Amino acid sequence: MSELRKDPIVDRWVIVASERGRRPTDFNIAADPPTGAFSPFSPGNESKTPPEVAQIGRPENAPPDSPGWRVRVVPNKFPALSNQGELDYQGKGMYDLMNGVGAHEVIIEHPSSEWDMAGASVEEMCDVLQAYSMRITGLQQDPRFRYVLVFRNKGVAAGATIAHPHSQVIALPIIPKIVKEKLDAGKEYFDRKKRSLFADMLRQELEQDERIVEANEHFIVMCPFASRFPFELQIFPRRHNHDFTSLSPAEMSELSSTLQRNLARIEQALGNPSYNLMLHSCPNLQPQPGRPDYWGTIAEDFCWHIDILPRLTNTAGFEWGTGCYINPVAPEQATQFLKEV
Amino acid sequence: MSELRKDPIVDRWVIVASERGRRPTDFNIAADPPTGAFSPFSPGNESKTPPEVAQIGRPENAPPDSPGWRVRVVPNKFPALSNQGELDYQGKGMYDLMNGVGAHEVIIEHPSSEWDMAGASVEEMCDVLQAYSMRITGLQQDPRFRYVLVFRNKGVAAGATIAHPHSQVIALPIIPKIVKEKLDAGKEYFDRKKRSLFADMLRQELEQDERIVEANEHFIVMCPFASRFPFELQIFPRRHNHDFTSLSPAEMSELSSTLQRNLARIEQALGNPSYNLMLHSCPNLQPQPGRPDYWGTIAEDFCWHIDILPRLTNTAGFEWGTGCYINPVAPEQATQFLKEV
Repeated sequence: MSELRKDPIVDRWVIVASERGRRPTDFNIAADPPTGAFSPFSPGNESKTPPEVAQIGRPENAPPDSPGWRVRVVPNKFPALSNQGELDYQGKGMYDLMNGVGAHEVIIEHPSSEWDMAGASVEEMCDVLQAYSMRITGLQQDPRFRYVLVFRNKGVAAGATIAHPHSQVIALPIIPKIVKEKLDAGKEYFDRKKRSLFADMLRQELEQDERIVEANEHFIVMCPFASRFPFELQIFPRRHNHDFTSLSPAEMSELSSTLQRNLARIEQALGNPSYNLMLHSCPNLQPQPGRPDYWGTIAEDFCWHIDILPRLTNTAGFEWGTGCYINPVAPEQATQFLKEV
Repeated sequence: MSELRKDPIVDRWVIVASERGRRPTDFNIAADPPTGAFSPFSPGNESKTPPEVAQIGRPENAPPDSPGWRVRVVPNKFPALSNQGELDYQGKGMYDLMNGVGAHEVIIEHPSSEWDMAGASVEEMCDVLQAYSMRITGLQQDPRFRYVLVFRNKGVAAGATIAHPHSQVIALPIIPKIVKEKLDAGKEYFDRKKRSLFADMLRQELEQDERIVEANEHFIVMCPFASRFPFELQIFPRRHNHDFTSLSPAEMSELSSTLQRNLARIEQALGNPSYNLMLHSCPNLQPQPGRPDYWGTIAEDFCWHIDILPRLTNTAGFEWGTGCYINPVAPEQATQFLKEV
């Protein structure tokens, strides 16, 4: 089983998953995943994946792990974390670690390996977002899991290794660093001002209107003020809401078209770049016996959002050494360009 | 001039350097930088770079920007930050920004574009480390600069764009996030325990002896307990010391051979991989008029170190969304493998 280790200096967890280990010379930055080749995610190949944990589209009486699905969710065949066993928190001198309890799933977004999110229909995209929501809800039933992240890696520069379109879900027994920073900032701001940090930021963005790519009935798409990367995008709900799984059908439908349309913008503007997409909803609010977190003002502290990071530039020594970024395209320029697409 | 912008939620600064801007379609993850081609860093081409700020090796009366140097330091031709002007801190509603004051230099490590650090002689490596030290000292004379980072990108996967071996120096008007986290953790630990966090960690590492690749008279080379990447290495001084620029000649000499030998280990073990190398010394301790930092216990809080990150795996949505990492090689395995090289 893998192991979660905490850096003794910086509050950062690492999953050491050495069952996945290879000889050192086996490492190679991968080439683009082959398209057109055999896909373990295609209909008819259901037996090539672990048994599914969820699906959308198959008639009610159809057997599991058979074709007929529109979206299918399976455990990752090479999971970074395992859902077996109790959490075992340990100290080793000054180091903190725990066993690698968690979940690692794959959301197969469409039967066709040629399908692309940027060209999806609203119905297709709704299915995918519905699967995101279902799996967050499902995994949050387990009080061991403190945070559930849904993410999507497109293209080799973004870390994709299988061409068939898919997202991934990882449930963690800890609140990860980036989420904790956002939660802490939101809480500190609310304690001080009795207003939501996220709502204040969005209000200012709408007023300034320099970085808003699109604002429709329910959603705001913008290039963040301190964008780390060229053409970085964020999608926020207009109605302040910490919990992605609480979206109404009308919101889900508009989010589907909003996401598709803005991925198409990026694809057109930048020539089908690699990107990472991350969905940040609130942590698991269900108390963990013996180790409850305090979520008193979470509904104000946090706002769910989607981050899209086109991977056009490399991160190098400066970024790794400082946590700062050099962005050669001002978000105002990027916004202008994306609006004109 | 570029602009420093602070993320409104997370304590992270971004340098928006849009003079460097290009059309969106100009972005391409680069291919390996060409070797053997024209090098603006070769002797005889001194006029192709901005006038040098330092050099090692030329006779005292020789004119600047002429051949004869062993190491040469020049301003970056496309700097992310500019050393002109006063710091101008601004607020824009809830956003914080300042003008892009700083320095961005290139350390040309050797006259030959074929030279490789992993094959360097002690004398050559000493020259390079001497240049690191000189530039940190030099830039810290300027109280506008709060932190000076030296780093080295090797290979395209690590972000290198010029094949001629070189390091870079960036001086920032802020303490960057990663450094601040390390300083804060060291300070909190010292306040609580009256011991150095770094010294305690190194003591435990030497006792456990599971992750020590090499321990010689003055230095400890180890794979960190919570390594983010396969074969990540850190070099620490045995004698607790916050300030890299205070190394004795004997220490500089042993560090030279230590660094060369361990880069050679990585090169042999992993087949000449791309890597990032970062040198972390203490912040600029010189007070900045009007905005002094408090460095009361810095000599205990912090310990200088070198981080080496082989770039064998891609960072993807999970890492960008959590700040956690999945490492497929346990640092204990990596240590064993590197010791056997």
